[in-house]
Amino acid sequence: MATYQKILVAVDLSSESALVLKKAQLIAGTNADLHVVYVQEPMDNVYVGIVPQSAAFSGLGDLEAQLGEELKEKLAALGEGFNLPVDHLHILHGSPAHEIHRFAREHDSELIVIGTHGQRGLQLLLGSTANSVLHGAGCDVLSVRIGATL
Amino acid sequence: MATYQKILVAVDLSSESALVLKKAQLIAGTNADLHVVYVQEPMDNVYVGIVPQSAAFSGLGDLEAQLGEELKEKLAALGEGFNLPVDHLHILHGSPAHEIHRFAREHDSELIVIGTHGQRGLQLLLGSTANSVLHGAGCDVLSVRIGATL
Repeated sequence: MATYQKILVAVDLSSESALVLKKAQLIAGTNADLHVVYVQEPMDNVYVGIVPQSAAFSGLGDLEAQLGEELKEKLAALGEGFNLPVDHLHILHGSPAHEIHRFAREHDSELIVIGTHGQRGLQLLLGSTANSVLHGAGCDVLSVRIGATL
Repeated sequence: MATYQKILVAVDLSSESALVLKKAQLIAGTNADLHVVYVQEPMDNVYVGIVPQSAAFSGLGDLEAQLGEELKEKLAALGEGFNLPVDHLHILHGSPAHEIHRFAREHDSELIVIGTHGQRGLQLLLGSTANSVLHGAGCDVLSVRIGATL
């Protein structure tokens, strides 16, 4: 049995994504196939529950496209720092856990690496994504703890 | 940054524990310090919610001691198969997630490795322990998926 060869690294493109990617590289086998995935959640998914059918949503399409461009640049910069080929960097759209599972299945990923914070305040969202990823995953999951210990 | 040197492997002593341990060894650094932990949950914790104050509990102490001996033998056999020193094999008593976190803190573990099943039927318990371990952990957690993919 060799160590992990097909690895999916899920990042949120925060400054801590480099640490998550670094950990993934450390445990990857030589010549491992390492894909980095960022999932852009549609803005109306995020806000529509709070202010449904708000007039503010009319400009969301443009905002989302602009945000998409900025995320693409950030992902490219992250990939470059780790010498990853451009076709191993992916921006997906939808629900994070769902898209991560789908990508992992389609690419026969053996390991999903994801960052997670403690369950406190603003850090809640990332922790909850890591939890959803763990639950539905058909492969191993490495949860990289970010920030101070509990 | 080196790969993980201080690793806690939490096992349930089922036949699948060897797979979990094997994965831990594969990603461990050379000369890594690898501890194997089994947590024996007090029987009255497990059953008292179902049949509180049952007369059947009077014999539990003996049963538990006997079970403890058998678990110790199983853990020793598992450790031997992986050439682990006896003082790196631990049977703890209490709530699994709580004891695993406590041990990890006291031993400065950098990584907790635990097996997890999909959330289906009888497999629910182990999945739920893995979930609790992930949430309160102050270090990275590798969840090794056991059995068929979802």
